[in-house]
Amino acid sequence: MLIDAMYPKSFASDNHAGVHPDILEAMTTANQGDAPAYGDDTWTAAFAEKVKEVFGPEAEGFAVLNGAGANMVGLALTLARRYDAVICADSAHIATHEAGAAERLLGVKLMTVPTEAGKLRPSDIESRLGGLGNPHESQPAVVSISQVTELGTCYSPDEMAALAETAHAAGLRLHVDGARLANAAAHLGCDLKTITADAGVDVFSFGGTKNGALAAEAVVVLDPSLSGAVPFLRRQSLQLASKMRFISAQLTALLTDDLWHRNARHANQMATRLADGLADIPGVTLAHPVQSNAVFATLPHAVTETLRRRYLFHYWDETAGTVRWMTAFDTTPEHVDDFLDDLRKAAATHL
Amino acid sequence: MLIDAMYPKSFASDNHAGVHPDILEAMTTANQGDAPAYGDDTWTAAFAEKVKEVFGPEAEGFAVLNGAGANMVGLALTLARRYDAVICADSAHIATHEAGAAERLLGVKLMTVPTEAGKLRPSDIESRLGGLGNPHESQPAVVSISQVTELGTCYSPDEMAALAETAHAAGLRLHVDGARLANAAAHLGCDLKTITADAGVDVFSFGGTKNGALAAEAVVVLDPSLSGAVPFLRRQSLQLASKMRFISAQLTALLTDDLWHRNARHANQMATRLADGLADIPGVTLAHPVQSNAVFATLPHAVTETLRRRYLFHYWDETAGTVRWMTAFDTTPEHVDDFLDDLRKAAATHL
Amino acid sequence: MLIDAMYPKSFASDNHAGVHPDILEAMTTANQGDAPAYGDDTWTAAFAEKVKEVFGPEAEGFAVLNGAGANMVGLALTLARRYDAVICADSAHIATHEAGAAERLLGVKLMTVPTEAGKLRPSDIESRLGGLGNPHESQPAVVSISQVTELGTCYSPDEMAALAETAHAAGLRLHVDGARLANAAAHLGCDLKTITADAGVDVFSFGGTKNGALAAEAVVVLDPSLSGAVPFLRRQSLQLASKMRFISAQLTALLTDDLWHRNARHANQMATRLADGLADIPGVTLAHPVQSNAVFATLPHAVTETLRRRYLFHYWDETAGTVRWMTAFDTTPEHVDDFLDDLRKAAATHL
Amino acid sequence: MLIDAMYPKSFASDNHAGVHPDILEAMTTANQGDAPAYGDDTWTAAFAEKVKEVFGPEAEGFAVLNGAGANMVGLALTLARRYDAVICADSAHIATHEAGAAERLLGVKLMTVPTEAGKLRPSDIESRLGGLGNPHESQPAVVSISQVTELGTCYSPDEMAALAETAHAAGLRLHVDGARLANAAAHLGCDLKTITADAGVDVFSFGGTKNGALAAEAVVVLDPSLSGAVPFLRRQSLQLASKMRFISAQLTALLTDDLWHRNARHANQMATRLADGLADIPGVTLAHPVQSNAVFATLPHAVTETLRRRYLFHYWDETAGTVRWMTAFDTTPEHVDDFLDDLRKAAATHL
Repeated sequence: MLIDAMYPKSFASDNHAGVHPDILEAMTTANQGDAPAYGDDTWTAAFAEKVKEVFGPEAEGFAVLNGAGANMVGLALTLARRYDAVICADSAHIATHEAGAAERLLGVKLMTVPTEAGKLRPSDIESRLGGLGNPHESQPAVVSISQVTELGTCYSPDEMAALAETAHAAGLRLHVDGARLANAAAHLGCDLKTITADAGVDVFSFGGTKNGALAAEAVVVLDPSLSGAVPFLRRQSLQLASKMRFISAQLTALLTDDLWHRNARHANQMATRLADGLADIPGVTLAHPVQSNAVFATLPHAVTETLRRRYLFHYWDETAGTVRWMTAFDTTPEHVDDFLDDLRKAAATHL
Repeated sequence: MLIDAMYPKSFASDNHAGVHPDILEAMTTANQGDAPAYGDDTWTAAFAEKVKEVFGPEAEGFAVLNGAGANMVGLALTLARRYDAVICADSAHIATHEAGAAERLLGVKLMTVPTEAGKLRPSDIESRLGGLGNPHESQPAVVSISQVTELGTCYSPDEMAALAETAHAAGLRLHVDGARLANAAAHLGCDLKTITADAGVDVFSFGGTKNGALAAEAVVVLDPSLSGAVPFLRRQSLQLASKMRFISAQLTALLTDDLWHRNARHANQMATRLADGLADIPGVTLAHPVQSNAVFATLPHAVTETLRRRYLFHYWDETAGTVRWMTAFDTTPEHVDDFLDDLRKAAATHL
Repeated sequence: MLIDAMYPKSFASDNHAGVHPDILEAMTTANQGDAPAYGDDTWTAAFAEKVKEVFGPEAEGFAVLNGAGANMVGLALTLARRYDAVICADSAHIATHEAGAAERLLGVKLMTVPTEAGKLRPSDIESRLGGLGNPHESQPAVVSISQVTELGTCYSPDEMAALAETAHAAGLRLHVDGARLANAAAHLGCDLKTITADAGVDVFSFGGTKNGALAAEAVVVLDPSLSGAVPFLRRQSLQLASKMRFISAQLTALLTDDLWHRNARHANQMATRLADGLADIPGVTLAHPVQSNAVFATLPHAVTETLRRRYLFHYWDETAGTVRWMTAFDTTPEHVDDFLDDLRKAAATHL
Repeated sequence: MLIDAMYPKSFASDNHAGVHPDILEAMTTANQGDAPAYGDDTWTAAFAEKVKEVFGPEAEGFAVLNGAGANMVGLALTLARRYDAVICADSAHIATHEAGAAERLLGVKLMTVPTEAGKLRPSDIESRLGGLGNPHESQPAVVSISQVTELGTCYSPDEMAALAETAHAAGLRLHVDGARLANAAAHLGCDLKTITADAGVDVFSFGGTKNGALAAEAVVVLDPSLSGAVPFLRRQSLQLASKMRFISAQLTALLTDDLWHRNARHANQMATRLADGLADIPGVTLAHPVQSNAVFATLPHAVTETLRRRYLFHYWDETAGTVRWMTAFDTTPEHVDDFLDDLRKAAATHL
């Protein structure tokens, strides 16, 4: 499927976008002379400082190579015992789209819970605690949520705090898959600390790649007792870059002058523009509230197929006719409006 | 250890070097508009073509993120049974410096063999086959060698072919950790195909990062029956880049106009220059033949310590007083000569 | 909880029963002189012959130590790729009561499906095949069902054949957890071959322990291409007894003169007697059809608690007030009638 | 190889012997009425008490099903981190004859050390500590020794204490594979506590099967902080018997009235008798000191082959002509003398 040239802006994934120019420039700037490998360099030190600035003095940030890597390192940290389990939504990326890495690399059972729009509730945690202490059952040790969820929805800071409280009360930790954490903060109108350190999160990932980086994610540890293990787990999990400065430089760029926020807010706005434009298109309905840079819509298959001749995007649930449209830092209002025009035409044709 | 600024050229690792300008330019060029994620893009298609050009029409190349990742994906491919074992040198990178990833992620036993200068011989393979068919013992399924070895030495094409023959005769496959495959080819004066496809190798990694890339390695599969599993194993092993075009572009740049060879040959020449310069320095002796961009030398600790005040490099065997000096694509004759001068002075001081 | 002495017959588990005298005698008989270890003995040869007699000439039987062990060896056989997944009911023993062994020891994702009374349908398999070929998703490779299910229900031979057909059509294998396979055959009024070899099963376990053995289960392989791996997997999975003759002797005893059937039929009859006796007890209702030696009933907590002062049994779903009562080969009509009397009195008290 | 009937006493393995009558009787006695499953029974409580009596009040004993199982549960306990490694002799059973279970089930790297006659020295531990703190290397966390070693030799209590001290000083734990712990104590003339609790051992296995049991081993934990995890790890590792009373009864029988000691001492005496008898047989030499129930001897292949026509035993190192002869609790002086006669004749023939 080598089809990139023939399409206008992709609505398939925020990963289809390129690299934000400020980030590429930061990488180019980092390419001066020698630097110690594996993170003993000044760019990585600067990134570690930025993490403390943004997430609080307890926070320790570790750069890794991709989102699944960030999740596996973050979870590995929190899973101290061989019989630990993770409670998560059945739509969680770790459960559905990481090719079984959690089970294969971590050996962990994912206790999945059906949810409304991808969001776990405190009662979902409680419903999975019945086997605590029973040696025949995997022992829940971590609650893992995604913020933004895989369905484009967000947890409010209060909702997160309630989950943290329930988890902690039962002796579990709270992990957040923050591949789109920036989009959540932008949607909620808060800073990144509000939905991490302040909400009681223990370990989370902070995604850069979907927000304009080339390939850079961070594992951030808020419980100081856990951070000592990260270097070993990151190395073993194949997530340690030798020329680390180039990964660190990307993350620092994102955390500088609120680039993370500008990119995420813009992408969110484009999704809202797209969702708003659907209102008057017959046969097209929103499948989930739009709370980030994702729009889930249900529409007739014939309309979808017509649109897919011109645009890259995926079915989310082909049987139900639900599709996912993603916007990115570089989606323009024109991209959205053109897309809406084409959708409107397709819908008209198939009425 | 944030010490990069205070040092001249590092001799600690080829990973301390930055990115070759042609490669950074290729990445910048790839940053145009959208591209499908995860490898369905034109840059990745071009890389796949290059691989066939260089390694033969059977060869299928898959871009990954780092050397340990390339090794784990490559080995995972060849280890079909849960009780398979890998025969390798006890100095093999997979056995010593990948934080136990082979055991943890693959669940595999490494049957390590003591060697002369890091090189496995056919008789070493044979010596580990006694348990074949015995259900109490792990079953050797793969021979893994490093070309260049961890001690800077190279296998000749004939030596590789003999290993492949011995392995295949016993029903084992031959895997090559080619983190510095380019340096081996440059040293041996052959092309890359001669020491891979032509030598009977089944699966190998081709390293880019130590040879001027930012972060890019390839798993190359020569046995077509194995390649179908790579996409799944790469994803599960956390080695799939979403914005793949930027990884592919690096590898294509390396394989274009022999950049791989120019970089490697130059680094090798700098190592030879360094080794040659040691000849007249009293108390300093080569620990292994210099057959790549690594110089292993034994010298008095006092001399080493004096030199380390000014240069970054590591002990290989502190007790024995052996150190490893690495050169890179961007090491200059002046860097080497200055280093030799400083070494000469240190040696004189401590005589 | 060292409470055994103070109770009459346990209704908690068929594992609370002792060993059938014929089986203990067979073990005692096997204790004569020396025998080669690890299965190279005449008792094990006799067991292998019995397996062929009972399950057909293709069948190869391998003795193991417990039910979870039989499941793990059986599944390991069928999971050839590191990204394979198992489709099973969400009530499956492998998913709920083996302490995460599937995920930890096999590294496999269990794709669990909610079911009616523990039974998977062909459409449940089909609903999990959407990700076939997608490298971001675990690949379904095996369907695992329990016969008898964890809820005491049975698949008819036709239902099994339909599952096998659906699985095979999609390239998946069918595995059966047969910890209570004997009870299923006794309930269905068929022989063991009808619900294994004849129904298209590829690999299954045949349980002895719950049916009167001391500790003996078998992994039976019907696909000859898989059996060569069993000795290695059994050893690695810690399921190989050194003094194997004593395990084999148990299984042979069960398969001789239909002891398996006599024991299972009797236990089933006792469960039916118990279920029949519930009909006139107010406030007690069956939660699932009684198709084996298990009775699931829902009753007021107060009644349950009164009864638990005198009898060992477990809640299945404490919130719902559902309990599980198991009968065994040595449960007598008097045991059942006494239990029913006590239940009747407790129910009367709490009305 | 169904050859048991045609041979006299086997000298191949102590696993070829049957079950000691006292142990079989204890099992038969345990077969009375119902008992809670999985260890909540009075036989298991009695065993736990016996363990405290024999090994001290801190000791907690957990019955498992076989030796490899005991090793895996014991090691799993001590390996808290995913990057932990075990230092052991390269002849260790866990490294050579458990089909890769350590790597596959535990995911652990075994740092093997060449030894003299299977015995690790404190300096061997120290030689493997160089990578402590280096995130590129597996981190030694446990020293595992076998007592009796795989070469039939024993550690003195002082030697064990020195290993414990070295291990503990570096923050490592000491694990003992005690499949033949009884034979070691009998040889050393001490009680079992002297070479476990008193010597600084943290976790060990105590073997029953090779010393007259049917199938029963124990994991004994001396560090109370570790024992809470055993029930979970035992279940997950497929080492939990449902009808546990029959396993516990065997171990209690062994620990009652010094049956363990009588059996082991007798077996040792038979080995000594055998070794003594070799003195005057030309061409036969001891390969290792005889310190248990194993005799390692080197003799001409032709003699070995003649003897193997009549006796079961294995080559240890076929190239070197070394064989292993094992005695058991039921080996009689006549067995040994007949064997020596036959050996003497064979040696005479081939001179």
